[in-house]
Amino acid sequence: DSTTVIRCKAAVAWEPNKPLVIEEIEVAPPQSNEVRIKIVTTALCRTDLYFLSESTTKYTFPMVLGHEAAGIVESVGPGVTEFKPGDKVIPVFLPQCRECRFCKSPKTNLCERSPVSRLTCRGKKLLQFANTSTFSEYTVVNQIAVAKIDPEAPLDKVCLIGCGVCSGYGAALNNARVEPGSSCAVFGLGAVGLAAVMGCKAAGAKTIIAVDTNPDKFHKARVLGATDFVNPNDHDKPISQVLSDMTNGGVDYSIECVGNVEVMSCVKGWGVSVIVGYTDMHDFAARPIQLLSGRTWKGSKLGGFKSKDGVPEMVKAYMAKKLNLEEFITHKMTLNQVNDAIELMEQGIGIRTVLSVSPQQ
Amino acid sequence: DSTTVIRCKAAVAWEPNKPLVIEEIEVAPPQSNEVRIKIVTTALCRTDLYFLSESTTKYTFPMVLGHEAAGIVESVGPGVTEFKPGDKVIPVFLPQCRECRFCKSPKTNLCERSPVSRLTCRGKKLLQFANTSTFSEYTVVNQIAVAKIDPEAPLDKVCLIGCGVCSGYGAALNNARVEPGSSCAVFGLGAVGLAAVMGCKAAGAKTIIAVDTNPDKFHKARVLGATDFVNPNDHDKPISQVLSDMTNGGVDYSIECVGNVEVMSCVKGWGVSVIVGYTDMHDFAARPIQLLSGRTWKGSKLGGFKSKDGVPEMVKAYMAKKLNLEEFITHKMTLNQVNDAIELMEQGIGIRTVLSVSPQQ
Repeated sequence: DSTTVIRCKAAVAWEPNKPLVIEEIEVAPPQSNEVRIKIVTTALCRTDLYFLSESTTKYTFPMVLGHEAAGIVESVGPGVTEFKPGDKVIPVFLPQCRECRFCKSPKTNLCERSPVSRLTCRGKKLLQFANTSTFSEYTVVNQIAVAKIDPEAPLDKVCLIGCGVCSGYGAALNNARVEPGSSCAVFGLGAVGLAAVMGCKAAGAKTIIAVDTNPDKFHKARVLGATDFVNPNDHDKPISQVLSDMTNGGVDYSIECVGNVEVMSCVKGWGVSVIVGYTDMHDFAARPIQLLSGRTWKGSKLGGFKSKDGVPEMVKAYMAKKLNLEEFITHKMTLNQVNDAIELMEQGIGIRTVLSVSPQQ
Repeated sequence: DSTTVIRCKAAVAWEPNKPLVIEEIEVAPPQSNEVRIKIVTTALCRTDLYFLSESTTKYTFPMVLGHEAAGIVESVGPGVTEFKPGDKVIPVFLPQCRECRFCKSPKTNLCERSPVSRLTCRGKKLLQFANTSTFSEYTVVNQIAVAKIDPEAPLDKVCLIGCGVCSGYGAALNNARVEPGSSCAVFGLGAVGLAAVMGCKAAGAKTIIAVDTNPDKFHKARVLGATDFVNPNDHDKPISQVLSDMTNGGVDYSIECVGNVEVMSCVKGWGVSVIVGYTDMHDFAARPIQLLSGRTWKGSKLGGFKSKDGVPEMVKAYMAKKLNLEEFITHKMTLNQVNDAIELMEQGIGIRTVLSVSPQQ
């Protein structure tokens, strides 16, 4: 209950670039406005790896990674009325407090608030990565970063909605605002890119060009709606020229899901490029003339969805069979195998590995 | 009339980085769909200087510069029904053919067509800079790049609408789409920046921060609507930090009118930065995180106005006293003094020099 410390299993990142270690950790009782969640399933997202090994941002180790997950409320702290034990939920890395100037604006899904950590191991505070830390049997999250979802939703599927699927799908619908009949290019066919393809299709795009250096990814892209496929390694020309030749000057919308902003390209006049792939490593260089000739560049976090509003809506869309999540799940493992899942992702094998963490009952 | 070659005076740029030379040139009769215009007044715009001395784009010299002007139709070629001799017009560097896919889209003011040159001097073809070449008593322009204006309009004022004033004013209204009550920053207080200040004011912005390293420009900015003034030389902090401190995290809209994209900054979440200042020299470096946190970057040409539609509307706004053009005009000279006007601009003295070219009658 909400008064006791829970001792449970988690995968701890003690230091950068090292395998995670399965440890017993302590999860503090939920405090005011907090929710303690039993994580049932979590997936591994490229951003977890990024902060484990590549990021130049100095995060404090030790930490518990994982932020694309689904679970069940175990207990709630004082002041929580929106959740009760047993509720199915998705914790979200982006809060929605509904009170700050960002939450009150319809133009953004950012939120100024940020929750704190309630995890310790061997006497050390564990940083709660992305406010969530879902590579753990239990975690504590402020209610402003928890979305209540349909009690019928299968947690081992809808966990993907917590990050990757919203990020790509929403980048097409909410950020790029792809219009019916338009042409789109999606760079990078990981989970985010494939979800962006699905978003372009849902928006009614006529041409959806899937771009990846690994042609093994093209089959899934086709299933999710891509109409054309480009492997940059097949061409001597810059990829922007290839796309321009295919589309009479460039696509109307491009969505960059690889963390390499240099690949962005779209038609002059009205073209919109949206960056989704996260990186804080590389600056990118650009010619002002690219923008002066009428292009727009935008960025996207969680696909522009306000988290607590958008995530349940996306779960609803999945339950109504408007969203394909099955196509993303290529591997199933347990939390104990998290380092194997990391290995697969580093080798570019498969799309999403879903880890079962706690039994649902 | 439309069958004879006109011999007249023009300022010819024979080679880069050299003073212009007043020469007698030949202006061919207008051909199909072309209009021959007697230029009454032209202003000098920074872009003229840019292409005379700095641009890395290899334009063909000799050429006749000048693209911010107003004049009177002298004669028309076959097929021209929209114009007749005596009409007051503004030639525009951006055509509007009304037929190409860009003209048909409400999202852009670009046009795919581009006119040709009808000027020669000493047996050499003269490049018609920006389709216009207004540093000449006469010029020939395709009717897709000529805007007919109010016959009552004073040409020595409305000439500024041909480039600078539209570019800045429209960047605020059409590209940034500044909203009432918002906060704006305008970088660079030349004619384009001052027009952007005027545009922000017209859009109902509450805070308009004028930024320039030359505090002499602040007075005009205040007259045109600026509420706050920042000289980057007065601060040790980066200018983005200064603006952030002044506006609780950054302005809603920023408009870059100096050709230095590095200065762009706006609030995360929904901030929009528009580039107006033209440069093809410098790439700019940016951190993707700037965009990922919800900013949008756009570019602007002629302030997003479709040229033949927008220019007459702006002239109408001036005639209705909704637009202040007088504040921009700091010097008056004749075409013969064009090199003096160039000198003033290079020294950063004044805003616009208006050159009288031909007598109106």
